[in-house]
Amino acid sequence: MSESDKSKPEESRKPTENIMYIGTKPPMSYVMATLSSLNNQDSNQLVFKARGRAISIAVDVVEITRRRFMRDKLAVKDIKIGTEQVGEAGDTRNVSTIEITVERTD
Amino acid sequence: MSESDKSKPEESRKPTENIMYIGTKPPMSYVMATLSSLNNQDSNQLVFKARGRAISIAVDVVEITRRRFMRDKLAVKDIKIGTEQVGEAGDTRNVSTIEITVERTD
Repeated sequence: MSESDKSKPEESRKPTENIMYIGTKPPMSYVMATLSSLNNQDSNQLVFKARGRAISIAVDVVEITRRRFMRDKLAVKDIKIGTEQVGEAGDTRNVSTIEITVERTD
Repeated sequence: MSESDKSKPEESRKPTENIMYIGTKPPMSYVMATLSSLNNQDSNQLVFKARGRAISIAVDVVEITRRRFMRDKLAVKDIKIGTEQVGEAGDTRNVSTIEITVERTD
């Protein structure tokens, strides 16, 4: 009880991690969602996450947003790559991942 | 004359920038070339460069090399993304790019 009571204020202090999952839609649909997200939320950071073939699309989304729509007002703060296991037990395979953190600078 | 004479020792001191261009071959063929390159050359750094859809393959190559073949002996030092213009004048388009710098740590 006291454990959960203590955890609540901590959660409300910590800003929600703003994540944009990139799949295989056309890049422009994620760009629109990105602009909307960066304009509305309290945090000025956004993390793009993608796996496999969508990694290229995630880079497209960041580059299009940054260059065409938010010139000089969006900075790439961090890029991480990694590997995840996907699939059911006995039928797993590895897939590459990327996480791109951007920050609004105005 | 003396200009070019002076530049020579400088060039030999500076290690050649080792670049691996990633295209659309299967990732494993680049992994083999990577292992060979990291074993043979003086420099312990290698820069992977890719554009467009090959960006996903570049991440695959780094992850497969690092995890399957050089466990804990290859570190990702830097990742940059960008945009390049391709095509002839009057028919240009933008393509996303990635540069991943890795370093052998043993």
